[in-house]
Amino acid sequence: MPDSHAADRFAVTTGPLPSSRKVYVGGTLFPEIRVAQREIDLTAGCGEAALPVYDTSGPYSDPGIITDIRKGLNPLRQSWIEARGDVEGYQGRDIRPEDNGLKSGQTSDVPQFDRAGRKPFRSRNGAAVTQMAYAKKGIITPEMEYVAIRENIGRAKLAEEAKRDGNSYGASIPDYVTPEFVRDEIARGRAIIPNNINHPESEPMIIGRNFLVKINANIGNSAISSSVAEEVDKLVWSIRWGADTVMDLSTGQNIHTTREWILRNSPVPIGTVPIYQALEKVNGKAEDLTWEIFRDTLIEQAEQGVDYFTIHAGVRLAYIPLTAKRVTGIVSRGGSIMAKWCLAHHKENFLYTHFEEICEILKAYDIAFSLGDGLRPGSIADANDEAQFGELETLGELTQIAWKHDVQVMIEGPGHVPMHKIKENMDKQLEVCGEAPFYTLGPLTTDIAPGYDHITSGIGAAMIGWFGTAMLCYVTPKEHLGLPDRDDVKVGVVTYKLAAHAADLAKGHPAAQMRDDALSRARFEFRWKDQFNLSLDPETAQKFHDQTLPADGAKLAHFCSMCGPKFCSMKISQEVRDFANSGMAEKSAEFLAQGGEIYREAGE
Amino acid sequence: MPDSHAADRFAVTTGPLPSSRKVYVGGTLFPEIRVAQREIDLTAGCGEAALPVYDTSGPYSDPGIITDIRKGLNPLRQSWIEARGDVEGYQGRDIRPEDNGLKSGQTSDVPQFDRAGRKPFRSRNGAAVTQMAYAKKGIITPEMEYVAIRENIGRAKLAEEAKRDGNSYGASIPDYVTPEFVRDEIARGRAIIPNNINHPESEPMIIGRNFLVKINANIGNSAISSSVAEEVDKLVWSIRWGADTVMDLSTGQNIHTTREWILRNSPVPIGTVPIYQALEKVNGKAEDLTWEIFRDTLIEQAEQGVDYFTIHAGVRLAYIPLTAKRVTGIVSRGGSIMAKWCLAHHKENFLYTHFEEICEILKAYDIAFSLGDGLRPGSIADANDEAQFGELETLGELTQIAWKHDVQVMIEGPGHVPMHKIKENMDKQLEVCGEAPFYTLGPLTTDIAPGYDHITSGIGAAMIGWFGTAMLCYVTPKEHLGLPDRDDVKVGVVTYKLAAHAADLAKGHPAAQMRDDALSRARFEFRWKDQFNLSLDPETAQKFHDQTLPADGAKLAHFCSMCGPKFCSMKISQEVRDFANSGMAEKSAEFLAQGGEIYREAGE
Repeated sequence: MPDSHAADRFAVTTGPLPSSRKVYVGGTLFPEIRVAQREIDLTAGCGEAALPVYDTSGPYSDPGIITDIRKGLNPLRQSWIEARGDVEGYQGRDIRPEDNGLKSGQTSDVPQFDRAGRKPFRSRNGAAVTQMAYAKKGIITPEMEYVAIRENIGRAKLAEEAKRDGNSYGASIPDYVTPEFVRDEIARGRAIIPNNINHPESEPMIIGRNFLVKINANIGNSAISSSVAEEVDKLVWSIRWGADTVMDLSTGQNIHTTREWILRNSPVPIGTVPIYQALEKVNGKAEDLTWEIFRDTLIEQAEQGVDYFTIHAGVRLAYIPLTAKRVTGIVSRGGSIMAKWCLAHHKENFLYTHFEEICEILKAYDIAFSLGDGLRPGSIADANDEAQFGELETLGELTQIAWKHDVQVMIEGPGHVPMHKIKENMDKQLEVCGEAPFYTLGPLTTDIAPGYDHITSGIGAAMIGWFGTAMLCYVTPKEHLGLPDRDDVKVGVVTYKLAAHAADLAKGHPAAQMRDDALSRARFEFRWKDQFNLSLDPETAQKFHDQTLPADGAKLAHFCSMCGPKFCSMKISQEVRDFANSGMAEKSAEFLAQGGEIYREAGE
Repeated sequence: MPDSHAADRFAVTTGPLPSSRKVYVGGTLFPEIRVAQREIDLTAGCGEAALPVYDTSGPYSDPGIITDIRKGLNPLRQSWIEARGDVEGYQGRDIRPEDNGLKSGQTSDVPQFDRAGRKPFRSRNGAAVTQMAYAKKGIITPEMEYVAIRENIGRAKLAEEAKRDGNSYGASIPDYVTPEFVRDEIARGRAIIPNNINHPESEPMIIGRNFLVKINANIGNSAISSSVAEEVDKLVWSIRWGADTVMDLSTGQNIHTTREWILRNSPVPIGTVPIYQALEKVNGKAEDLTWEIFRDTLIEQAEQGVDYFTIHAGVRLAYIPLTAKRVTGIVSRGGSIMAKWCLAHHKENFLYTHFEEICEILKAYDIAFSLGDGLRPGSIADANDEAQFGELETLGELTQIAWKHDVQVMIEGPGHVPMHKIKENMDKQLEVCGEAPFYTLGPLTTDIAPGYDHITSGIGAAMIGWFGTAMLCYVTPKEHLGLPDRDDVKVGVVTYKLAAHAADLAKGHPAAQMRDDALSRARFEFRWKDQFNLSLDPETAQKFHDQTLPADGAKLAHFCSMCGPKFCSMKISQEVRDFANSGMAEKSAEFLAQGGEIYREAGE
């Protein structure tokens, strides 16, 4: 069980996962790189080596590192950023009460993160300081080598034991990921590394169709809580179970302050939807939004270090009437805000008309676009309609503009889509968006199971991940019904982790099957503890086992509660194997070669 | 919440689901038929009619019927069976202590179901009294009309509102199911109605690729419980949430008695794996099994009324050595029992060599075969291997033999299969088994998430259901770990129900989308109670909502806890719709036609 480094009001969840060790792998091009991975130790004497797995949990799971959220994480990328010599510190924008949803003069009892004189960075002379800009120039950055090492976990053993198998639907997954391959994919726009230069605490990760499928978890502030540790712990909890990125969808008061605490303590990229905060600044009246207020919000969040922005620039005025006959109209919050603005002013979406100016901002900080699907379907009935696909085509146009500015881009996708319409989404996205990474919410494959929408959407997520989606935005059991609690977040993350992994298997990612094989061998050999520890959620696996057979001895038993000792098929199967290995296989084959026909006749 | 008809130790879960009424639809060919369906009433004044849905819950959810498990359910098919004039009552086999896992002379404190002199039936003169035999003769039975009415629920409204949409992968799903269509499908072997003449309490249901996808729930006795109500309630609970059939996988003591209680109180078909009970009779020693003991067990269960038998006749001696190099060997209990027998005697599987004799028994009671996949893969590594597909080919041969005897057949399938290998399973099954219905366990799409295997398998189940599988065997969260409790059973059933429904949508079943549309309209119009009541699990949906917004007023609120009143996209979207409907749509279109280019240039 996780322990806490500091038993005070700034404590968050820490400690390793069961039977796991943190291991750091060094770089070759950049020897200062230390890529964290987790190794799961198996039962002594079982004859198997520890299994290395991709690790999103950051320093919190390393008992060798004392974290303190008041100080924030070690800014591991700071020296890499500065070494490039293309950024400058500057004074930055003053924080105003309205950034925190407060009236002028109003104060809040939420503690401030002490920036201790840190200045924000931006590019010098408006140059692009993006991974895409470097990639296009042929430069391999430390970030690129970092993600190459990270993606390769386990692949070194490939030649020995893992076979490549799968159908990648036209993706170009290499046997081994080199830094040069990463560079090339980023230059082409087929992958992104979201990493604002003002978020040097982030451990680089890559999102693209030719890499492992990633998942995002959404968090948001609680109106009832003013504990910053609680807000940071939502992040820590999500990444502990496998979230690759986290979106902070907070609204209302103290969101600037909360975001600062999150960013300074986040080893994963943080995304936001800046229009939410902009709307707060105009007291929730969409029609009062202006480009100036929005622009100012982008700068505010850029200086804090947000790694990607959802921007609903594809909600064009002309598409809005197409939604009027839908069963569920516009269900994206950002989409509906922009639609309302467009109709109120009878003008084209200002995010669309100012798109190049947005690119100028994003390239100065290396913030990636997550082009929002404001018109995504909110029900099976509305899937793949004119409004949705019209917007998608606009996102394709905008992708080309962003790339012209060397800004990294991913594209958001639906939503609610029945299974037979999922592939069309992926195919169309690849076609019109130039293979920019797709980032989908589910999709939910039916509307009739509120309370189980992590599952209705997990089905769609696994499928679209297989077809080529690069990152899957999680859905919790509370979707459509209420705010997810800690357990819901965990269930959502683990569900999406298993969906992403099922997609990796089906795509034929080298070495993806190593964990399945290790767990299945443990299962077959009744190494119960290994089965628990190799699973995505060791705590739940062990808890479920112990509900039926709580005794410690049961974890050594060569049977389980489902069948009991007499019926255990695994046990009988091992006997069959022993029998077969004792020369029986050859004898059976001979026997059948002679007598097979007789038996067959008897049966027919 | 369900109430109990009798507050005594024979009480089970009863009462309607929220806002639901039981409705009975009469037959045309057979006016005495009364097909139960559920109608979900929506908020008064919402302008929508009650939604009819398929109902598996039997008389327990009808407040107009007083059930008493000591008397059993009304034998609604008794008169239909007798009217055919081809069956006879007979003395039947005596019940022996070993049928209940007892030693000679040993007694049990489990109460006996009072059969009150009921005699078992069997066919006269060894004739086939199966639905397939009637179908081949061109006879439409009441059972056939019953399932036709049942499958058509909602389709009457089809012309008005539902569109056909989907990809059925070559299935032949009609717009409207006629009794003649049912007869034809059964005659071809493409569908089965599992209904033993000794289980007249069952409400007919059909399993086939051209009908709605069905789900099965497994139950089993608890060693710790001697309450028969508790055992019957497992059945009642499963069907309340949507199980179409239930398999009784009990082992150990009192299984004959428990099965009697279950059958007399089950409105759904009951399946078993007779080899489990046969093994009990030889004290768990597979090598001591004989054809005679197995045969006697078939008769025992046939007389009680079991509707389908899993028979592992495809585990041929020659295939067994093919499993020795697998990661997880043989994981089917029945498969491993037969493998052990074959190797111990070095003889061909007696279920294979006696297959025609088994057909003779099954046709005398109209018991369907569920040809077991004893060599199904138990891990991703073992999917689609030689052993699995070798057995499948044998099952195809056996299907032809069973059909020759007019015995109904379905084929069991895997197991653990990565997504990219699922379709091959379906295609091969259709090819080698003559389109006999496929009945799969999941498949699980990854091995790494014990504790979440209802989800790893729900993904595979939805997909294989779409591709053509007729019935999906559920998996609970406790799979591989422990015995499912009441909550696990419900989660398993609801997960499989949503997977089956997602498959129905993707296959393009007429009217399947009506429930999605009704729920989505309720969601969009903030009819919270309707959203809960239309969902597969109204209790959980409401509970999740109330955790965040418990006040009764919140169920009338035009917003929800996720976004709050200011941000609610549904609310804004309704404003957009009102706006668009006020003539704005035309104006926007005009405007764009004139000025669209300008906006575009600004963005580019």
